[in-house]
Amino acid sequence: MRLSIQADLTYSFDRPCEVLLLLEAARAPDQAIHSERLTITPATEIARLDDSVTGERRAVFTAHGEVTIAYTANVELLARASDLKGCAATAIRDLPGEALRYLRASRYCPSDRFEAFVAEEFGKLDGGDKVAAIVDWIGGHLTYEVGASDAMTTAMDTFVDRAGVCRDFAHLAISLCRAADIPARAVSAYAWKLEPPDLHAVAEVYLGGRWRLIDATGLAPIDGLVRVATGLDAADIAFMTIFGRANLISQSFTVGKI
Amino acid sequence: MRLSIQADLTYSFDRPCEVLLLLEAARAPDQAIHSERLTITPATEIARLDDSVTGERRAVFTAHGEVTIAYTANVELLARASDLKGCAATAIRDLPGEALRYLRASRYCPSDRFEAFVAEEFGKLDGGDKVAAIVDWIGGHLTYEVGASDAMTTAMDTFVDRAGVCRDFAHLAISLCRAADIPARAVSAYAWKLEPPDLHAVAEVYLGGRWRLIDATGLAPIDGLVRVATGLDAADIAFMTIFGRANLISQSFTVGKI
Amino acid sequence: MRLSIQADLTYSFDRPCEVLLLLEAARAPDQAIHSERLTITPATEIARLDDSVTGERRAVFTAHGEVTIAYTANVELLARASDLKGCAATAIRDLPGEALRYLRASRYCPSDRFEAFVAEEFGKLDGGDKVAAIVDWIGGHLTYEVGASDAMTTAMDTFVDRAGVCRDFAHLAISLCRAADIPARAVSAYAWKLEPPDLHAVAEVYLGGRWRLIDATGLAPIDGLVRVATGLDAADIAFMTIFGRANLISQSFTVGKI
Amino acid sequence: MRLSIQADLTYSFDRPCEVLLLLEAARAPDQAIHSERLTITPATEIARLDDSVTGERRAVFTAHGEVTIAYTANVELLARASDLKGCAATAIRDLPGEALRYLRASRYCPSDRFEAFVAEEFGKLDGGDKVAAIVDWIGGHLTYEVGASDAMTTAMDTFVDRAGVCRDFAHLAISLCRAADIPARAVSAYAWKLEPPDLHAVAEVYLGGRWRLIDATGLAPIDGLVRVATGLDAADIAFMTIFGRANLISQSFTVGKI
Repeated sequence: MRLSIQADLTYSFDRPCEVLLLLEAARAPDQAIHSERLTITPATEIARLDDSVTGERRAVFTAHGEVTIAYTANVELLARASDLKGCAATAIRDLPGEALRYLRASRYCPSDRFEAFVAEEFGKLDGGDKVAAIVDWIGGHLTYEVGASDAMTTAMDTFVDRAGVCRDFAHLAISLCRAADIPARAVSAYAWKLEPPDLHAVAEVYLGGRWRLIDATGLAPIDGLVRVATGLDAADIAFMTIFGRANLISQSFTVGKI
Repeated sequence: MRLSIQADLTYSFDRPCEVLLLLEAARAPDQAIHSERLTITPATEIARLDDSVTGERRAVFTAHGEVTIAYTANVELLARASDLKGCAATAIRDLPGEALRYLRASRYCPSDRFEAFVAEEFGKLDGGDKVAAIVDWIGGHLTYEVGASDAMTTAMDTFVDRAGVCRDFAHLAISLCRAADIPARAVSAYAWKLEPPDLHAVAEVYLGGRWRLIDATGLAPIDGLVRVATGLDAADIAFMTIFGRANLISQSFTVGKI
Repeated sequence: MRLSIQADLTYSFDRPCEVLLLLEAARAPDQAIHSERLTITPATEIARLDDSVTGERRAVFTAHGEVTIAYTANVELLARASDLKGCAATAIRDLPGEALRYLRASRYCPSDRFEAFVAEEFGKLDGGDKVAAIVDWIGGHLTYEVGASDAMTTAMDTFVDRAGVCRDFAHLAISLCRAADIPARAVSAYAWKLEPPDLHAVAEVYLGGRWRLIDATGLAPIDGLVRVATGLDAADIAFMTIFGRANLISQSFTVGKI
Repeated sequence: MRLSIQADLTYSFDRPCEVLLLLEAARAPDQAIHSERLTITPATEIARLDDSVTGERRAVFTAHGEVTIAYTANVELLARASDLKGCAATAIRDLPGEALRYLRASRYCPSDRFEAFVAEEFGKLDGGDKVAAIVDWIGGHLTYEVGASDAMTTAMDTFVDRAGVCRDFAHLAISLCRAADIPARAVSAYAWKLEPPDLHAVAEVYLGGRWRLIDATGLAPIDGLVRVATGLDAADIAFMTIFGRANLISQSFTVGKI
């Protein structure tokens, strides 16, 4: 599938401050970027701090006054393993070194707290079957509800509240998988068919020798996700980090099939 | 049933400080105190701040040096409603005024967080049937485990951790009942057959026009509980509050059938 | 000083549900209610669960459809001790029994966490001087900022965030006073000169044999507060508790000097 | 300075489980390992997942029964920049890509909560002077107290409690530095002169183009630290992660000057 992406952001900055942008399609093996353009207006120098391990693209620039950021890309999604059933868990010793940190509790994903629940509820399953059961459980017990959570909400909150938005669903999925010693991380993505259009937060687990995207919200097809940023949880994948203050003027995302 | 109670506490206080003791059997309609004696050594003046609403007994004194507190009582347990099945919930308007505060979230019982869970899991039940189902759920999903919790553990922690001690079981029961608009509170009690002997923490709900004791731990019979302190949660029912510092030297509780 | 109070609330209730209203001026020794009227439209039976200890007025009724609640009163504020300097702390043994619970940590006021800070920062002061220093410290270190907090914010959050609204200021004051073994509680009040007009949350400490109002926000004069509800913290003093769901249509408060 | 290190750990494992060990001296530019030996008894195959970016050494093996781990090394500490005064902060755009994640809030270091405090208390300072003031503030306001914290304690807890152990001091330093947009991370280290001998937790900030160790506890000289693991906070630098259960039998650390 080939998707056309467009993001348009306008913010106003009272004083000059640095901005980190995680908005561009990742250079990852499961997607090919056929064309793309990042335009910042007024024009400014962009420093690149891209990450070669995950393919995450990172642009840093100094913003002042009213600033518009436009990103367009034409991305082809390549064979994507969304199959979970029957996938074997990978032994710790066989993990790639960079996967280790995705086994640990993180800010929004205090996975060490869920070990008893995971053992009780999913203890008889392994690998991909366990992950599939976790995704089903979350889909069946959580309500998608805008306003049910905020920037401080952790997976413990969501597990109790039984409601949240995409990042909360992802945080709980990540926490439960890590509690089962399965590496799990957060991914931001442009999502085909997501309504209303927005950057989507999903999870990704390491199984059977590769990372596999999962999405307990069921709001958009896995096969229509364009990978952007990758990290421990939402703390790592915000599309814009402002080292200072700014006011949002407008913001829109569009994803279309070509 | 008639029980003989004995509590012996020895602490050492480096400097004089006030101590609040909630150790004596409550003067409540469901138990009759046939004899009792509270002895503090060395002898000291005891101020009484007893609560006429709950019958809670409160002794305040100044402690310095090594202090021994001995309490013995002979208490008869009167007809106690432990029946839940079929009990109707009481409308808010028909509650006694002092029951209102037991509907609210408290420190260890953030009941407002459990509304969605309670609606999902117990929404089809009412009154005593709902409470009975809550007690069963807790008994079936929590493991009694010394060391799984500490003085800061809330019902949210316990709900996630799936383990705790008697106060944690009580906190979760209280939280879930309040989330269903059923007044619920914490009670400390001498407990016949509890092993090892200790002051026990249980919960109490207001149903069918009266307070009814419940205990999701199943560690001791409801009919063998001698009521001591009553409050919102564990913050209110500690048997000793020291306004300063002290070191525990020894502490023992004995409950026997006469 | 004599004040005229007016509160007008309109809510819509999809299904019949009970409502607890803590909106009327308390029957307390420091204020005299010369006239008042509570009108609920459409007319409905009102059950009264007033509290004789604090003078808190509690109205319970069943609401359905669009419901308007109007409260008007003419209240005279009597001699009010707002003096703190030189007031002695009261020994625990000399407290009225009902003050004991205001020494304990509560949901939004985890006072036991602040003992080291209070000892370090205010350890050389006592009684009213200590409370005055606490009020000054809060006024000097916190920013009044709408949106800095939400319904889950505790005094620990506020102490770290250094910002909040009136209830957060009150929670921190209560926490620090309790950490110094001074009984402290939350009070809701109609506040003369408060802009924008709203029900105000302040704190109250027990010193020199009586309760004394304090307000670290400095937003309204202590002498112009009409006492309404009293409790451990904001969990207890909400002016309306809805046992079900409702939508706010409009809400206004007016306080004028007569 | 040249140090000789010895670590001896004995654990018992009821069932075979994988173990991740972050116990070996890092291969970092500020220290040279002249000799070392890691011995696991009974002998077992060791998989290496070393991290080339930080030089962190990671050994993974399967443990069963009683297992003894012995590590000895002879390490020379090279020129180490512990100077802070006058060091300039590095612009975001000039940071190495891998430093970005050390700007973000993490599990034990919710740095976004401390922005107002840092602005108020250290706002007039920059770069190394700001970090030095933060280290001084922590040293002056926190008490080193074993038992004051546990495995769940965050920098918010420590900021309120005013007490903790080395990891808590490090977490608060990291949080305050990140709140000032200075990359900061956690480092475990063998520490010369630390009493009692143990693996020490310290912090590290990125200033003037390089990472600089800081230690607000003042318990051991910076120049006597042998770097081991590096991460966001304590969640990342535990010297042993057991994917299953084990019992500690004995554990000792020795650091001597050669």
